[in-house]
Amino acid sequence: MTAKRSRMTAGDRRTAILDVAAELLSTHPWEEVTVALLLEGAGISKGGFYHHFTSKEDVLEALLLRFTDACTAAGQAVHERSPGGAVARFTAYLGGTTRWELDHAEKIVAVIRIAMMAGNESIFLKLEEETRQRATPLLRRLVAEGVRERAFDVIDIDMTVSLLQHAWRMRWVVLGQARQLCAAGDFAGGRAMLEDRLSLEERMTNRLLGCAAETPVRMPAAEEFKGFLTSL
Amino acid sequence: MTAKRSRMTAGDRRTAILDVAAELLSTHPWEEVTVALLLEGAGISKGGFYHHFTSKEDVLEALLLRFTDACTAAGQAVHERSPGGAVARFTAYLGGTTRWELDHAEKIVAVIRIAMMAGNESIFLKLEEETRQRATPLLRRLVAEGVRERAFDVIDIDMTVSLLQHAWRMRWVVLGQARQLCAAGDFAGGRAMLEDRLSLEERMTNRLLGCAAETPVRMPAAEEFKGFLTSL
Repeated sequence: MTAKRSRMTAGDRRTAILDVAAELLSTHPWEEVTVALLLEGAGISKGGFYHHFTSKEDVLEALLLRFTDACTAAGQAVHERSPGGAVARFTAYLGGTTRWELDHAEKIVAVIRIAMMAGNESIFLKLEEETRQRATPLLRRLVAEGVRERAFDVIDIDMTVSLLQHAWRMRWVVLGQARQLCAAGDFAGGRAMLEDRLSLEERMTNRLLGCAAETPVRMPAAEEFKGFLTSL
Repeated sequence: MTAKRSRMTAGDRRTAILDVAAELLSTHPWEEVTVALLLEGAGISKGGFYHHFTSKEDVLEALLLRFTDACTAAGQAVHERSPGGAVARFTAYLGGTTRWELDHAEKIVAVIRIAMMAGNESIFLKLEEETRQRATPLLRRLVAEGVRERAFDVIDIDMTVSLLQHAWRMRWVVLGQARQLCAAGDFAGGRAMLEDRLSLEERMTNRLLGCAAETPVRMPAAEEFKGFLTSL
């Protein structure tokens, strides 16, 4: 362990801490995650830890930014491989980010649970703003492409991107509630809640983008969320 | 002073502190406003102060909520007196809240300045969320009226209200910048910045409300902001 540690660069150490934190987030209530647990899991000294982070809250913040970057990268990759015009590529982006989120659903739900705990609102509102800003440049590009191709008819690119992100922001809170319904035995109710939310976001997204009614941007199908809904 | 103080009810004392804070906000940088200044201005003892507030930040929070309630009440009063259908009444609401804001512009600009100081973002994001929630019930009613009268065609009332508030939220930041331009001698530039912003918000508001192109909701005219633009 010591040998391994001495070979780690500063960047490696930071990554190791974030990896361990991401793992612990899925398996432990955040109240039980301590700096000591993070050190132990990452095989890192106290000094090494405090070189990178000031506290476990600081780790959580870095972790959220890493999640956002990974999710945005997943959306971008799918978007770039997607054939067709701006509508198809925007739909691909929505699918790519959603699939990334579904692959990391437990971590997202854990983060939402921490955010909703009393006293955490302020810090999470700021974090949410920061994570949104990370995703903004790519979204701005996607919207601008659609405007150039005359597939989108927006009021203003920057305000449209900001409102799109605002329209999507409660999705995982609703998904969590829908999963709770399913876990309580009301699968039809949970499924209906999910479908209502996806439909609402899809219609609002199309209105903001100004898509023609016959060529709308599409949210992923409810079917894709089936595994998540029944995973409790 | 002692006689006066002893006649004050707890509610009076709270109001007196907020009145003094509102005054100081327009005349002093917030860093210079101390609890001692608030006590002196309100003619209130330390004990009386801490009965109502935990800190001067707490006073600022209460003050912001009072501003929001007063602004919403101004919009509601104008809206209720307004003849005509939902479009006219919504336009009246926008005018009423804007005129209230213009009458209290120095305090709003002071609050924005405090909010933008490093380290204050978290607390202000939370405050912004709280103040938005205060205005939500009335806005929901206005939108629902328009839907009932078929003047508005919205995707979803709650999401529409949330996005409207989000679309309007940067207005006073932009107004402050426009005033700075005017103060620097570029009156045409400041005026154009103001007009662009009002036009952008008007078009986005109409899109979100789904108003027919021939009967749009109107933002107040740029003319109404003239006094503010040239007040530095």
